[in-house]
Amino acid sequence: MTAKVVSTEIMKKIKLGLIGLGRIGKVHAENLVYRVQAADLVAVADPMEATRDFANNLGIQNFHTTPENIFDNQEIDAVVICSPTPTHLPIIESAAKQGKHIFCEKPLEMTTKKIQQIIDITKQNGVKLQVGFNRRFDANYRRVHAQVTSGKIGEPHILKITSRDPAPPSIDYIKSSGGMFMDMTIHDFDMARFIVGSEVVEVFAKGAVLADKAIGEAGDIDTAMITLKFANGCLGVIDNSRKAVYGYDQRLEIFGSKGMSKITNNYSDTQISFDENGRHAGLPLHFFMQRYTEAYCEEIREFVEAIQGDKPVLASGEDALKATQIALAANKSLVMNAPINVTQTFLSVP
Amino acid sequence: MTAKVVSTEIMKKIKLGLIGLGRIGKVHAENLVYRVQAADLVAVADPMEATRDFANNLGIQNFHTTPENIFDNQEIDAVVICSPTPTHLPIIESAAKQGKHIFCEKPLEMTTKKIQQIIDITKQNGVKLQVGFNRRFDANYRRVHAQVTSGKIGEPHILKITSRDPAPPSIDYIKSSGGMFMDMTIHDFDMARFIVGSEVVEVFAKGAVLADKAIGEAGDIDTAMITLKFANGCLGVIDNSRKAVYGYDQRLEIFGSKGMSKITNNYSDTQISFDENGRHAGLPLHFFMQRYTEAYCEEIREFVEAIQGDKPVLASGEDALKATQIALAANKSLVMNAPINVTQTFLSVP
Amino acid sequence: MTAKVVSTEIMKKIKLGLIGLGRIGKVHAENLVYRVQAADLVAVADPMEATRDFANNLGIQNFHTTPENIFDNQEIDAVVICSPTPTHLPIIESAAKQGKHIFCEKPLEMTTKKIQQIIDITKQNGVKLQVGFNRRFDANYRRVHAQVTSGKIGEPHILKITSRDPAPPSIDYIKSSGGMFMDMTIHDFDMARFIVGSEVVEVFAKGAVLADKAIGEAGDIDTAMITLKFANGCLGVIDNSRKAVYGYDQRLEIFGSKGMSKITNNYSDTQISFDENGRHAGLPLHFFMQRYTEAYCEEIREFVEAIQGDKPVLASGEDALKATQIALAANKSLVMNAPINVTQTFLSVP
Amino acid sequence: MTAKVVSTEIMKKIKLGLIGLGRIGKVHAENLVYRVQAADLVAVADPMEATRDFANNLGIQNFHTTPENIFDNQEIDAVVICSPTPTHLPIIESAAKQGKHIFCEKPLEMTTKKIQQIIDITKQNGVKLQVGFNRRFDANYRRVHAQVTSGKIGEPHILKITSRDPAPPSIDYIKSSGGMFMDMTIHDFDMARFIVGSEVVEVFAKGAVLADKAIGEAGDIDTAMITLKFANGCLGVIDNSRKAVYGYDQRLEIFGSKGMSKITNNYSDTQISFDENGRHAGLPLHFFMQRYTEAYCEEIREFVEAIQGDKPVLASGEDALKATQIALAANKSLVMNAPINVTQTFLSVP
Repeated sequence: MTAKVVSTEIMKKIKLGLIGLGRIGKVHAENLVYRVQAADLVAVADPMEATRDFANNLGIQNFHTTPENIFDNQEIDAVVICSPTPTHLPIIESAAKQGKHIFCEKPLEMTTKKIQQIIDITKQNGVKLQVGFNRRFDANYRRVHAQVTSGKIGEPHILKITSRDPAPPSIDYIKSSGGMFMDMTIHDFDMARFIVGSEVVEVFAKGAVLADKAIGEAGDIDTAMITLKFANGCLGVIDNSRKAVYGYDQRLEIFGSKGMSKITNNYSDTQISFDENGRHAGLPLHFFMQRYTEAYCEEIREFVEAIQGDKPVLASGEDALKATQIALAANKSLVMNAPINVTQTFLSVP
Repeated sequence: MTAKVVSTEIMKKIKLGLIGLGRIGKVHAENLVYRVQAADLVAVADPMEATRDFANNLGIQNFHTTPENIFDNQEIDAVVICSPTPTHLPIIESAAKQGKHIFCEKPLEMTTKKIQQIIDITKQNGVKLQVGFNRRFDANYRRVHAQVTSGKIGEPHILKITSRDPAPPSIDYIKSSGGMFMDMTIHDFDMARFIVGSEVVEVFAKGAVLADKAIGEAGDIDTAMITLKFANGCLGVIDNSRKAVYGYDQRLEIFGSKGMSKITNNYSDTQISFDENGRHAGLPLHFFMQRYTEAYCEEIREFVEAIQGDKPVLASGEDALKATQIALAANKSLVMNAPINVTQTFLSVP
Repeated sequence: MTAKVVSTEIMKKIKLGLIGLGRIGKVHAENLVYRVQAADLVAVADPMEATRDFANNLGIQNFHTTPENIFDNQEIDAVVICSPTPTHLPIIESAAKQGKHIFCEKPLEMTTKKIQQIIDITKQNGVKLQVGFNRRFDANYRRVHAQVTSGKIGEPHILKITSRDPAPPSIDYIKSSGGMFMDMTIHDFDMARFIVGSEVVEVFAKGAVLADKAIGEAGDIDTAMITLKFANGCLGVIDNSRKAVYGYDQRLEIFGSKGMSKITNNYSDTQISFDENGRHAGLPLHFFMQRYTEAYCEEIREFVEAIQGDKPVLASGEDALKATQIALAANKSLVMNAPINVTQTFLSVP
Repeated sequence: MTAKVVSTEIMKKIKLGLIGLGRIGKVHAENLVYRVQAADLVAVADPMEATRDFANNLGIQNFHTTPENIFDNQEIDAVVICSPTPTHLPIIESAAKQGKHIFCEKPLEMTTKKIQQIIDITKQNGVKLQVGFNRRFDANYRRVHAQVTSGKIGEPHILKITSRDPAPPSIDYIKSSGGMFMDMTIHDFDMARFIVGSEVVEVFAKGAVLADKAIGEAGDIDTAMITLKFANGCLGVIDNSRKAVYGYDQRLEIFGSKGMSKITNNYSDTQISFDENGRHAGLPLHFFMQRYTEAYCEEIREFVEAIQGDKPVLASGEDALKATQIALAANKSLVMNAPINVTQTFLSVP
């Protein structure tokens, strides 16, 4: 079946089904209902009966405990997938075959092989595929991106990304996360490619267990420093920590032949106090749900508008594939304590 | 008739009617529908038929071209009044007599006599009255307020408020605005009392026509410097301009015996560019609709919650009365080029 | 006798005598010896024998206990006067008559009549007169001044100066200081004229005793808010405190038809700490000796260079006269609680 | 001969001889004469007759064209060595044998073997040895260092250093510089050890020629990203560029278990302009001579005071040895594209 052709008539709303009403699923549902004018969220599916009330309160017409009704609903133009990662491939396959455009949360899948399958399926069925790299839609990163693409900084020479969480997740979460690079740094790998505008060709990853021994016992790291080399010659570095006691820390800097563009972290207010001990200001916005509130809304709005206007999406399946390849190469580098060629790695580590 | 007693049962929603679907009325309507969980906006009234579609799109059940149906609707707990200023007193009177709690946009009324009547009517009918001093609900000002009330800055000695608009309104608007002090500075007069926590006892206002001669020809000023003296001895100053070419500028600083608390202006992102000419960053959030988006939402949320929990409102009728008195005294000071005692003024200038 | 004609030959050093080796006299002496290449400090005079060692350590050839030897020394091109204010007029008279160029610390004199005499004497003898308004030579203020004179901010509309001391001087000092406006605000009055580039025509001064009751008992104030109106229509405000617990606070902002230029306070380092309570940074540079170290050096260097190159000085006797007139008008405004016309005032209050 | 015993009597001045009146030699000479009270610069030596005038103007008694007279002068307590690097070892040897304390500019020597010889010689003769790692004496870095040593940031986890020059040196200079790591990054290697308080055990260096092809043709790099691992587990990164078009860029950040301490770059003034295009501020202090003016003064003052009070120096021969070892390991890493164990490297690369 071919993808639904969406009328270009002004204000033709896009009808969507959403699968998985966990924390991020609820965020997308509320944004679609309240903040995305072009969207009409007509159905949600979640195995937990307890989420039915949430759907009802949003005024969503159809609640299902399995996604099949959404695949079969010919009215529905697109699906938003927020279910657990192992379900992504089969859900995308079913939805794409019914001509639905796909928005899928990250990680798209854990192996490059399955991600390639997803890309192939969506291409074969002519449907759009957007992945949840929400930071690309954040005002700060966008402004830096615009500085680079407009040539303001010239040729990129040095990229620096700082990305630190306020507190580690549970050890259970860590055990099933695919490791810090796949779970946390993958956003930074994607951002690196997005800002530099060139592919990562080599990765050297150093990791350490400095914040919480239990993370090390679970086989993961909590602190990392990752050096990148890009195809255009630019050098990059990402530093990560699972535990910044002062809160979520999200910064980026790109330096080039004509100048530099950088962003600082975000805070809830601009207040500064002065007393006899010095100057004092507040903590950052707590974590990603507070920091990227607008970006979550914007990514789903632009997904809907990409369907409405038949435009390319800003975060594609290929983007997910490339970021995953870098993460896998970083994992390998960590183990081998050696720089790793990215394109060679994903062939051997599916 | 007495005010409706609102059940304290958790999640009992407050039913509201909204009168006046102009720009700010639409903002309140969207916030009530999309962002205030405790609110149920059941009816709107506006004489313009063209606003019916807006109401329908929000899923509001009842649209009326006159407010009477809202007054008579016994289901409705509260009204949100966004109609032209001259209608405020009669609408509040009708609504209060039907036991409805009142949220009314600023200016509440143009004379202290009518504002006093509004206060009296709402008290007699036992309904809450909140006025639209939205800046009290802004995260920046709140943080400063908390620093003062918690004693962090000690006794207040000096208050400084900068409040500048990006561009003047139309000359038609200016002619019917009541003058810059009543239209624009009134927010700053309210903020001055809110932050210092003491009444203004003397005003000295200097005004000038520097930005646009047409404003002067219309009998108003576009630039002002207003000195305040507070009952607790604190000295204050407000500077205003109708035209800051770099955009909306909203800052405040309070200095006291133990320290200082200040806020800077707000911007859409944190990006800074560096090139061979220096460092460059972006313009402020454009104007009040962008700058105070969250504050508009928060003021209406807290109004609804004040009804739900039977708590006092943060911006009362008395606050509107006091700010108006200061504005009238400032007008008089401008004409006389002399400091004016505030409490004496409003007696003679109703 | 006519002023000494200084050879334009490159590296012809200017020979100076310095009168008064108190705190500021020592600063000027060290700057002349160590940091001003074009200067040759050949003599100092101070009645205290204890200062002789200081002079010797600097390698100054001649130490006198009275200034006459300096007046009579035909080698000397210029004198730097750091003696008590009441001695300024007679010293300047004697020095000018011997053709010496004059650098004199502020206040030049306490009455406009005597300041006018000083101006007349120096003009009659054809010698330069520079007064110690050191802030005009500070990098921050200079940068703002350049923004204004280059037209970057357009026509000036609003000027704001914040000037707060870390701690009040002794009560003895206050009693003989001429009052806060003459002692402390006079720097701000001068800066206001310097930045706006127009004369102050009206002053309204509010004062209060909020920091230290003893200051009030000594007949002075410790907190002030002074509104200014300039001949070009610009409005201004200066806020002062004798006691900012967080330290010396020196800021300025000028707003005009094309934009704004502002400076923040100065700190000893750029370090910021982040912990679980927020962000923390250090106190400002302690007081004027630390904050204006460079400006003190620069003012004396430019005085010497003005002589060497026969160029006008940046802070003239007329500047001292005007600032004093404003201070006297502010004193009068404070007493009368009314705005005061500046040009009328100094006629009646010599 | 044993080191001169310096009297602990207050104000006993230290007598110094300075060897090499190039750019940095002149800076040290002026600081010793004008700004270091405890110093008495009694002799300088430089083969260029043209520098004699400079010495005379400073009032230095003895000018020599060879350093022997300084070694032989029994009055002299210490020597300041600013001659070319290849002369350091023989000069230090001669001076140390005469019991002179040693301040020597960086690089101390180009091989670890010769540096070790210098350390041995100075120890055997009981003289102090301080190397010109001037940044350790800068107010910004000192403040960060104090935060770390006082435990404010807890255990160090991540170190980030940005160090970029405004423009590359001449190709001739580059050819004899020992390479970017030895010439430029060596300051950062020293700072890394100073701030983290632990030894670097592994280095991974990526380099590129992005700013100027001629540098590549001369066999060097102009852009680098160097990952460090410290003995205490901390991870670090240094990024370098020979050409930042916006100017000299010197920043550092240390992140740990209890918080973060960071410094921003330094600027000549705090002025910010606002116009219809945004906010604009100035360029950084131009280069190291402007940026580290105070640090150059402070390092020589503390050297003199260390002699006077018989205290340890803040930047020792061992510090130079360690930084050189890291630079050599970085060179090796660059060639091998592999992480290099630091302690093993300097054994094989003398």
